[in-house]
Amino acid sequence: MNHLLTMAELTEREILNILQDAQDFANGKQLKAKEQIFVANLFFENSTRTRFSFEVAEKRLGLEVLNFAAESSSVQKGETLYDTVKTLEAIGTKAVVIRHPQDQYFEKLKDRVSIPILNAGDGCGNHPTQSLLDLLTIQQEFHRFESLRIVIAGDVRHSRVARSNAQALRKLGAHVDFAGPEQWKDTSMGGCFASLDELLPQADVVMLLRVQHERHDRKAEIMGYLEKYGLTKEREQRMKPGSIIMHPAPINRGVEIADELIECERSRIFKQMENGVYVRMAVLKRALSNILGGVAHELLV
Amino acid sequence: MNHLLTMAELTEREILNILQDAQDFANGKQLKAKEQIFVANLFFENSTRTRFSFEVAEKRLGLEVLNFAAESSSVQKGETLYDTVKTLEAIGTKAVVIRHPQDQYFEKLKDRVSIPILNAGDGCGNHPTQSLLDLLTIQQEFHRFESLRIVIAGDVRHSRVARSNAQALRKLGAHVDFAGPEQWKDTSMGGCFASLDELLPQADVVMLLRVQHERHDRKAEIMGYLEKYGLTKEREQRMKPGSIIMHPAPINRGVEIADELIECERSRIFKQMENGVYVRMAVLKRALSNILGGVAHELLV
Amino acid sequence: MNHLLTMAELTEREILNILQDAQDFANGKQLKAKEQIFVANLFFENSTRTRFSFEVAEKRLGLEVLNFAAESSSVQKGETLYDTVKTLEAIGTKAVVIRHPQDQYFEKLKDRVSIPILNAGDGCGNHPTQSLLDLLTIQQEFHRFESLRIVIAGDVRHSRVARSNAQALRKLGAHVDFAGPEQWKDTSMGGCFASLDELLPQADVVMLLRVQHERHDRKAEIMGYLEKYGLTKEREQRMKPGSIIMHPAPINRGVEIADELIECERSRIFKQMENGVYVRMAVLKRALSNILGGVAHELLV
Repeated sequence: MNHLLTMAELTEREILNILQDAQDFANGKQLKAKEQIFVANLFFENSTRTRFSFEVAEKRLGLEVLNFAAESSSVQKGETLYDTVKTLEAIGTKAVVIRHPQDQYFEKLKDRVSIPILNAGDGCGNHPTQSLLDLLTIQQEFHRFESLRIVIAGDVRHSRVARSNAQALRKLGAHVDFAGPEQWKDTSMGGCFASLDELLPQADVVMLLRVQHERHDRKAEIMGYLEKYGLTKEREQRMKPGSIIMHPAPINRGVEIADELIECERSRIFKQMENGVYVRMAVLKRALSNILGGVAHELLV
Repeated sequence: MNHLLTMAELTEREILNILQDAQDFANGKQLKAKEQIFVANLFFENSTRTRFSFEVAEKRLGLEVLNFAAESSSVQKGETLYDTVKTLEAIGTKAVVIRHPQDQYFEKLKDRVSIPILNAGDGCGNHPTQSLLDLLTIQQEFHRFESLRIVIAGDVRHSRVARSNAQALRKLGAHVDFAGPEQWKDTSMGGCFASLDELLPQADVVMLLRVQHERHDRKAEIMGYLEKYGLTKEREQRMKPGSIIMHPAPINRGVEIADELIECERSRIFKQMENGVYVRMAVLKRALSNILGGVAHELLV
Repeated sequence: MNHLLTMAELTEREILNILQDAQDFANGKQLKAKEQIFVANLFFENSTRTRFSFEVAEKRLGLEVLNFAAESSSVQKGETLYDTVKTLEAIGTKAVVIRHPQDQYFEKLKDRVSIPILNAGDGCGNHPTQSLLDLLTIQQEFHRFESLRIVIAGDVRHSRVARSNAQALRKLGAHVDFAGPEQWKDTSMGGCFASLDELLPQADVVMLLRVQHERHDRKAEIMGYLEKYGLTKEREQRMKPGSIIMHPAPINRGVEIADELIECERSRIFKQMENGVYVRMAVLKRALSNILGGVAHELLV
């Protein structure tokens, strides 16, 4: 079963294969299902980027999309996630994309369902397609991961992105450090934890994390966040030549990053979103390889 | 006008024709619209199974689907159901699937609209496609309805499923009895009302009904429900050889049925869901026979 | 950039071109994208007609549709409209249809995004596709605009429709007057403001406006509205031969118009809705002319 649940479960080889497929799609390769294959998107948390990115990826692969919104489903009648997925399986769905607020929600599913699960984010846990699109964006820029210096800055403790990315980047040979407010420090992720000012001059990549208002109610702390912990115009000017800025979005403008930097020359923020589609096409191809392989026709444009 | 509103309006012949078409689809028959035909799904109540089952059925027939969610529509501005349906008709919709909390909502519509209405559940009233998928599941199992003994167990009084099924099963020659808590007894449906323990040993089919928390606020009663009225492992062992268990879902695990029975050998619960797609393809074919007939191509695989 | 934001920005020639394209579609002309082109519908306010009308128009043009519902998006995490649109652009969307409660929301977007925006209503401001479908309905009826007498009656002050229509109709040579309660009078729109009784006998078109409960909390005023300001059966009988009744819907039955007039011979209310699809096909064709022109095939049936 080709689930995609965490970055940890992927070998270096598997990661590089997915990135290669994604880059092929970025270069214009087309792959289209010739028969109807249904996939369902189950989003139990709000999302714009991830949800639409998956939907575009699915439709570009010629898949039929079922968009499941938790608020108008039988989940409201107390149905378990397992029963919901089994239902979708019973009516002919061949893969499910799931975002869910509960950490490791997939542990109760992964050995009991017979269709692949693509994890689109679990609580504060994993968000593997976000990591993969970050990796693709870095690879497009530097054509290697070895000895790159990556700084992940912000709410390290509550970030799905921080955890998944740190694991994967190190597996591929990069050096990962962290910056951010002391109370969001998470020593379980290794690396060095220092101030952005200290780490910034050596960084090839500064990955900013979102301040997640909706997960911890500390709005007061946002006052002054940019100056203390965020990427100001002044800090950006001390970045290395050729270094880049990334952010998983949605952005709190003027909090994690100064407004005028969002579309600056170093920013790859919108490039990341574009790459999200290619990465999701690649993981869907991987998940559906048994059935898509037989019925799709490939076209290298 | 080929509305599908209640099981009562269908003759035995019509029911058997729908089941035949559904079985053909189950066997792999394909029918695809060759032109764009729009259908709309109007769900004024939460649903997973029925909504997605209709959507999959529609897309397998090559229809264009409009998914209407009451919460973001002009219904919020006070628009009547009639005006909503007339609007959909005006913009080119050729059939509407409606689930609505009001019993017999369709009485105000059926003679005033010029497109077929497929009733996907009205309040505590009817749910004909659920009945049809139940019938298909029974027919696949026993290849007849005559003299089968069916026990419908649970919240008989508030169940759309109980009412529709009892009518249809008797029309086809089956014997239908009821079991459940005394306060949910409904003598208007005929048959015998007894304890599950009494009826179980003779039953070919035990159809469990959902305890509908959202319709009557009696959560206290759920305590001990399984032991008193539900299908326990012990009761299951007293069932006849070859007899089957059905449930319309969503299931309250450990309330109507013991957790470990949901996917047991006798259970047809997920088979019912699968059959839901074929039955809905069949009723859509019936509703759209005028236009689909002319533009679809059939393929018997 | 072929945005469609307001009626004011369209020249007489452009309006007539759009109407001509729309009439071609009404006559059965087909235009289908031969490649995948994604468009997104962003509705930040409830809508049935406009949203589904755009969706049907998009699908009839063979476009891939992304339906964005504000309530389950990152807008809930505080994302700006600009970032949402840039996100959709980054993942490959080629046009966005937006309804938003804020007047002139598009001012902050129009020069900063590189995909066309189709305004599906901004606050109390503009609603150009509603105006265009009104114009098409009038043109189908009278085959001219010059010297037609149009009366717009109702909540003139808060109506997107009143403002857009008055501008456009005058540009095309029609004479526009207003009627309605004194407190909803808006002298900034020119023309004469009088009672419906006074203006009705000369009118070729009576355009009724919706009493917008959700915009101003004056439910008390609805008591007696029909008799004082609405179109009663008695008033309808004093209308000119050949004159027509229009209403943008949703209708408050028995408030702006007597129930029995909604589908009377003079009423073009459902015709307006039908025309909404053709008009939206025409403005999508205009917005996407660069890419659709190259990849679509036209078929005049």
